[in-house]
Amino acid sequence: MSKNLTTRSEDYSKWYNELVVKADLAENSGVRGCMVIKPYGYAIWEKMQAELDRMFKETGHQNAYFPLFVPKSMFEAEETNAEGFAKECAVVTHYRLKNDPDKPGKLMVDPNAKLEEELIVRPTSEAIIWSTYKGWVQSYRDLPLLINQWANVVRWEMRTRLFLRTAEFLWQEGHTAHATRQEAIEESEKMMHVYADFVENFMAIPVVKGLKTETERFAGADETYCIEALMQDGKALQAGTSHFLGQNFAKAFDVKFATAEGKQEYVWGTSWGVSTRLMGALVMTHSDDNGLVLPPNLAPIQVVIVPIYKSDEELEKITAVVTDLMTQFKKLKISVKFDNRTTQKPGFKFAEWELKGVPVRIAVGPKDLENGTFEVARRDTLSKEVVSKDGIVNYINDLLETIQNDLFQRALGYRQNHITEVNSFEEFKEVLENKGGFLSAHWDGTPETEEKIKDLTKATIRCIPLDRVDEQGKCIFTGAESAGRVLFAKAY
Amino acid sequence: MSKNLTTRSEDYSKWYNELVVKADLAENSGVRGCMVIKPYGYAIWEKMQAELDRMFKETGHQNAYFPLFVPKSMFEAEETNAEGFAKECAVVTHYRLKNDPDKPGKLMVDPNAKLEEELIVRPTSEAIIWSTYKGWVQSYRDLPLLINQWANVVRWEMRTRLFLRTAEFLWQEGHTAHATRQEAIEESEKMMHVYADFVENFMAIPVVKGLKTETERFAGADETYCIEALMQDGKALQAGTSHFLGQNFAKAFDVKFATAEGKQEYVWGTSWGVSTRLMGALVMTHSDDNGLVLPPNLAPIQVVIVPIYKSDEELEKITAVVTDLMTQFKKLKISVKFDNRTTQKPGFKFAEWELKGVPVRIAVGPKDLENGTFEVARRDTLSKEVVSKDGIVNYINDLLETIQNDLFQRALGYRQNHITEVNSFEEFKEVLENKGGFLSAHWDGTPETEEKIKDLTKATIRCIPLDRVDEQGKCIFTGAESAGRVLFAKAY
Repeated sequence: MSKNLTTRSEDYSKWYNELVVKADLAENSGVRGCMVIKPYGYAIWEKMQAELDRMFKETGHQNAYFPLFVPKSMFEAEETNAEGFAKECAVVTHYRLKNDPDKPGKLMVDPNAKLEEELIVRPTSEAIIWSTYKGWVQSYRDLPLLINQWANVVRWEMRTRLFLRTAEFLWQEGHTAHATRQEAIEESEKMMHVYADFVENFMAIPVVKGLKTETERFAGADETYCIEALMQDGKALQAGTSHFLGQNFAKAFDVKFATAEGKQEYVWGTSWGVSTRLMGALVMTHSDDNGLVLPPNLAPIQVVIVPIYKSDEELEKITAVVTDLMTQFKKLKISVKFDNRTTQKPGFKFAEWELKGVPVRIAVGPKDLENGTFEVARRDTLSKEVVSKDGIVNYINDLLETIQNDLFQRALGYRQNHITEVNSFEEFKEVLENKGGFLSAHWDGTPETEEKIKDLTKATIRCIPLDRVDEQGKCIFTGAESAGRVLFAKAY
Repeated sequence: MSKNLTTRSEDYSKWYNELVVKADLAENSGVRGCMVIKPYGYAIWEKMQAELDRMFKETGHQNAYFPLFVPKSMFEAEETNAEGFAKECAVVTHYRLKNDPDKPGKLMVDPNAKLEEELIVRPTSEAIIWSTYKGWVQSYRDLPLLINQWANVVRWEMRTRLFLRTAEFLWQEGHTAHATRQEAIEESEKMMHVYADFVENFMAIPVVKGLKTETERFAGADETYCIEALMQDGKALQAGTSHFLGQNFAKAFDVKFATAEGKQEYVWGTSWGVSTRLMGALVMTHSDDNGLVLPPNLAPIQVVIVPIYKSDEELEKITAVVTDLMTQFKKLKISVKFDNRTTQKPGFKFAEWELKGVPVRIAVGPKDLENGTFEVARRDTLSKEVVSKDGIVNYINDLLETIQNDLFQRALGYRQNHITEVNSFEEFKEVLENKGGFLSAHWDGTPETEEKIKDLTKATIRCIPLDRVDEQGKCIFTGAESAGRVLFAKAY
């Protein structure tokens, strides 16, 4: 199979777009800005979902489902949130089509079926969920509410890119309600840590945990926690956010509870989400010019076995050995595919599975049968080794773990090489231009400076790292006092 | 806890509506016709999803995801399908809100953000999926395509009821493409059997497999297979459908493939779906005047343990025994809850878990500790037994299986008692009025007769059973010749 993949150094953006399509992850649909997630891509998303869902349940959350539509009056109740999303809302105004009298066989919107009140297709579900929580919370005994939803949401983006920015995307959104401010803050922090754990240990992508500045905060939140990852082109990608909502939604939707002492108080809230955007982060962190590189934890196929043969008789002998091997893999829950297609040559198969990022490839031919060996190739390093068939299964099992760790370490190394402390705006621009990555710099804390830097350089403050050290310094732009560094970067 | 549940004999419909809400399955939302699926209800749906998903994958299907929106021109391409759904389509016409200049703090649809082409919120996804398949199918080697999607869909219903008929609902929709007519027919039949297997063996609901008449067929299908269940009020409920689409969508979307001989031919299609409607079937088949009755396979909590105690010391001793018991249950993957709330009395707890349909309740008090026994109560029969603690875990494990089977047998008995052969229209009306259930009757095969009977009695032909015997007879309405009986019923 011919890959014809643009290389990363030629055009990183084009490389990404081509790879997502050629590796069968997703494609653009006939609907502006909306994607089709293809089976191979969806299988990866399902693995992410299963693991996240397990982690959410382990931390006491339950799933539920809330409506796709939000009536306009409900949507606008929390004003900051409504204003933040108003410009990207798909709006349902009618509920019926009818035959177009002027065009036989065509339909038109029935003007007699106009909704009394417009419905917003949810861009996020705080409004509909908090309007529901009002009915669920009376007393402190009803708290906390720890609820998650797997859903589709719509944000009408003008410039879209597969997985990274699409008009419709899939996500999970957690929405919790608490009796105290402290408990809600702890919940938002806990979920940020859950996300970081998932992204680092399951997706092998290192992240920085931090707080968003006021400018970058979720509309309607008092505080937004985030995890920020770094792509191979030196641009940052926000991989997940967790919001402390204060009492903003409780006040907008009048959600009060009776305390143990009988007082009426507003409930404290959080919300947190990750989306199919993570698929983009996955591709851009690990993959190379030959195609996808998948961490074993997320690979729909972890091991592919390709037979090398010249006759049916040879294939038969190989098949017998492979069948036995596959049984052993399956016992260890290693997902394995025997690519015994007779329509394609081994070279084509090698290239195809390389493109699709299968972590380990085993090739087996008549020589191997004689010698009792297999040829084992790693996708991440493209290295090959001849391995004796004795103990091959444990060898592969360990290798998958090694690959998972190596991918993380490699990405971590890259990230560590791309956090640069800068101490002047000149240096800031120079590093941003020539090296990219995160720039660790002093900032005077004002939205005005943040905006000016963004206008001049396209770099934004990705986060105020949670682990930053107290360090007096001068803002690189205004020279005003600063109490610690923040991370700037160009971002997806 | 006070249940105050309307009884089935008082008002079956009211009993259902109340039960769904009181048992925390779902509730109406602030959005017309849309429901909120609450955590307890959603946990049951998740169990259905997991089992169905497993069955789909075992039969070779893969999941994917297609857009929520369908542009009008794409929607109307397959005319029969489009006409069938036109009257219940939610339509997106705008993509932005703006501040309402006349009403501070309020938003309005931005008239400058009108879409060039309206977007239909999918009522079903054949159009968007077949427009995609056009790009996926070139040769016979690309076939079959065996794809499933878990998604939300919207059908603007005027009269809605929780789970049974809601404007938005959750479902899965399989969409497959095949090289031959025969293969597509086999696929639609296979999926009908998969559904029947799931509904009977997992949900404990007996079904009749059959074909829909032309009138009741899916808009755009050449043939619709269905499984029909019978509720306790004698009304039928369509539990799942599987459609043989012929080449209708392939022609509408120009999906052709090159055969092995190099000829261009249109692809053959199927689609099949089940939805959250199954939750309604579940409630209405098994539950009683005390609340839900859940088959063990679907119960989020299979066993609840309630301690009976007067002092903290007693509770401590009970807790020690229960903790050990729970470990053993968990080893067998039995989901168990120890209801050790100190805020509620045992009687309240008994009523609550009865309402929520937990299959087995274990009560344990100081007497039991002395005697080495537990009190075991079955939700389905409301019977109680004292069981020795030796072997209790295996006893409960077997009991859960017994309950699962008994529920099916009970429902099957009811169904068998409610299939009545009728041989005249008088008899038809009499049985329909006084007994309900399925009426097995001869019909002349015309849509006209079908419609007249429906107008006069509200009964529709639920299906032409696949296992019907050849039997010459006279149509109960027109007296014309008939080659076999069909099943009529009033239906949800």
